Amino acid sequence: MQKINVKIPAYSKGSYTITIGAGFLPSVLSNIKKLLPKKELFLITDSNVAKTKHFKNLLGKEHLPRYVITPAGEKSKNIGTVTKIIEEMERKSLGRDCAVIALGGGTVGDIAGFVAAIYKRGVPVIQIPTTTVAQADSAIGGKTGVDSSISKNAFGIFKNPAAVFIDVSTLKTLDEKQFNAGLVESIKHSLIADEKYFVYLQKNLKGILERKCKLLEYIAVKNCKIKAAVVEDDPYEKNKRRILNYGHTIGHAVESASNYKLLHGQAVAIGIIAANIIEQKLGLDGKERLETLKKLFGKLNISLKIPKTITKRRILDIISRDKKALRKWPRFVLLQKTGKVLCKNGQFAIQIEREIVEETIDILLKQKF
Amino acid sequence: MQKINVKIPAYSKGSYTITIGAGFLPSVLSNIKKLLPKKELFLITDSNVAKTKHFKNLLGKEHLPRYVITPAGEKSKNIGTVTKIIEEMERKSLGRDCAVIALGGGTVGDIAGFVAAIYKRGVPVIQIPTTTVAQADSAIGGKTGVDSSISKNAFGIFKNPAAVFIDVSTLKTLDEKQFNAGLVESIKHSLIADEKYFVYLQKNLKGILERKCKLLEYIAVKNCKIKAAVVEDDPYEKNKRRILNYGHTIGHAVESASNYKLLHGQAVAIGIIAANIIEQKLGLDGKERLETLKKLFGKLNISLKIPKTITKRRILDIISRDKKALRKWPRFVLLQKTGKVLCKNGQFAIQIEREIVEETIDILLKQKF
Repeated sequence: MQKINVKIPAYSKGSYTITIGAGFLPSVLSNIKKLLPKKELFLITDSNVAKTKHFKNLLGKEHLPRYVITPAGEKSKNIGTVTKIIEEMERKSLGRDCAVIALGGGTVGDIAGFVAAIYKRGVPVIQIPTTTVAQADSAIGGKTGVDSSISKNAFGIFKNPAAVFIDVSTLKTLDEKQFNAGLVESIKHSLIADEKYFVYLQKNLKGILERKCKLLEYIAVKNCKIKAAVVEDDPYEKNKRRILNYGHTIGHAVESASNYKLLHGQAVAIGIIAANIIEQKLGLDGKERLETLKKLFGKLNISLKIPKTITKRRILDIISRDKKALRKWPRFVLLQKTGKVLCKNGQFAIQIEREIVEETIDILLKQKF
Repeated sequence: MQKINVKIPAYSKGSYTITIGAGFLPSVLSNIKKLLPKKELFLITDSNVAKTKHFKNLLGKEHLPRYVITPAGEKSKNIGTVTKIIEEMERKSLGRDCAVIALGGGTVGDIAGFVAAIYKRGVPVIQIPTTTVAQADSAIGGKTGVDSSISKNAFGIFKNPAAVFIDVSTLKTLDEKQFNAGLVESIKHSLIADEKYFVYLQKNLKGILERKCKLLEYIAVKNCKIKAAVVEDDPYEKNKRRILNYGHTIGHAVESASNYKLLHGQAVAIGIIAANIIEQKLGLDGKERLETLKKLFGKLNISLKIPKTITKRRILDIISRDKKALRKWPRFVLLQKTGKVLCKNGQFAIQIEREIVEETIDILLKQKF
């Protein structure tokens, strides 16, 4: 018997730049061309974004080969869409010397990032997020993926973008429900990392809802800085990065169980309430914050009601398959206090007794919080 | 406008071990458990391998959750199979704390490696190759992928295995056509890296075809050492790793155009002849080697005839989409002499004039070599 050792060389450190501003979309394509000279560009967007002026602002007179995801939204976030996009790229004879541009919300970014990661074993991707949820969260940090018929992001991979361009003026055309739901990720960032930011969001909510560019730019920068710091520390989610999943364990479950009728932000708001209930059951400080959160979500017109079709059993079934699960039981991210995540035995995701989780789901379903 | 820089930390170097021997399959599972304690194991194999004693030798009395790819072979190497496997893993509630074991030939290894790379953003994979082609080539080096309806490995990613176990006694049950075709990858390795090994293969062909374990172990070690050295140097195929694609540009094209009726090894043999014809047209030494190769492939009963249904136009169409293609025209790996790849302007894959490529395809189709 012989043994041969195959060395895997170190992957040298790198970086990418997030550019944040208002109204600079018309200059983005020339910036991409400078960044990736000689790359053939392929644009992925969806049927909603393709109708907006952002699409025209990005392209100008340029004609790029493209794929328009139809219908827009989580319903299309599956391997069938990925297959169609890859076959379109092949029909255009795009080689490994191409790059993908993602223009749109979280769904577009997740699909396009995953396509770029697996097309001919990998090509670069540029993220241009156009929604509150994508600008605050999904376009940064390299998580990509699509859903299976059983769970969210069952197919996926870590794929850092080559660059991110956040033009907050794209948020002006977003419908109110989407805009507001996306702000939940900003609230989540403040809860896990920065109490002052949590206060800022409460105080400036009126101006944010009026979509004042200065305020939108401020929160975009804040979100990116908080997320970047976490991601740099733990890019492959071995531990600390899990704090970004605050509110997402129950959140993903109700989102998936609703067949994506709940918007991601709305589902995460429910998940944040769930985490708060668990925190209180564990004797952590949370009662006052719960009242503040209920008020805040109320001002955002976000309903915390779980659709009647969703049963406790279904939620338990989905969370047992959560990506943070160990031995088929999920782990939860919890707050020690506003702005600080609980760390127990060095771990930021904590297994909670089944009884507490079940009681929490009961409280959520009965709206008794 | 503000810019935020997101650092991507260096990925520290690592390594994995290839264990090569004869008859040690019954001890492999306990080795895997030592290597990956606490991981839930999921086995991927195919309907051919599931019938063999290797399957029983690996598992003993253990029952592992599994997926049996049916039918075996390249026909199943598509995203539909990947989806079915991932949904089966989800039904078994496997979390990120699982690992995938691939038992089988190149198709099983490519599919299982890709599944492991994208399941919940990545879990480890252990490769246990059972064919000449997989032991010589596909199980080592981390290339994974599945075919689209348009081209080979259109979906794929680099995913290094956590370990590779090569038990050459598994080759004893392989049918003759598969066994012989797989030896073409050994011949390829000798051509690109080691003239003495090329001579060894010619001299010891009788014993190899009799599947003498000592000889099979020798060539397995030789293949792994040659491939490991190349892969360590250039893991993500930026340049030098392309030499492993010797014979694969035309090879992949005729394999794909035959709708996978040609075995991979047979297709690569045709591709090696194609490369030799181009080498001769460019004035490189190759005439004598062509005669040796024809004899060698003859002894392996490998037909160099391209099926009549395959046209020149179809081959040209497929090679324009080759993964090494630049501006929609493929690059070729060529030999300077036996055991040494031609390097031109620092590049190991070279663009060849369309006229020469077309003439070469004509010669192949008319069998005038």
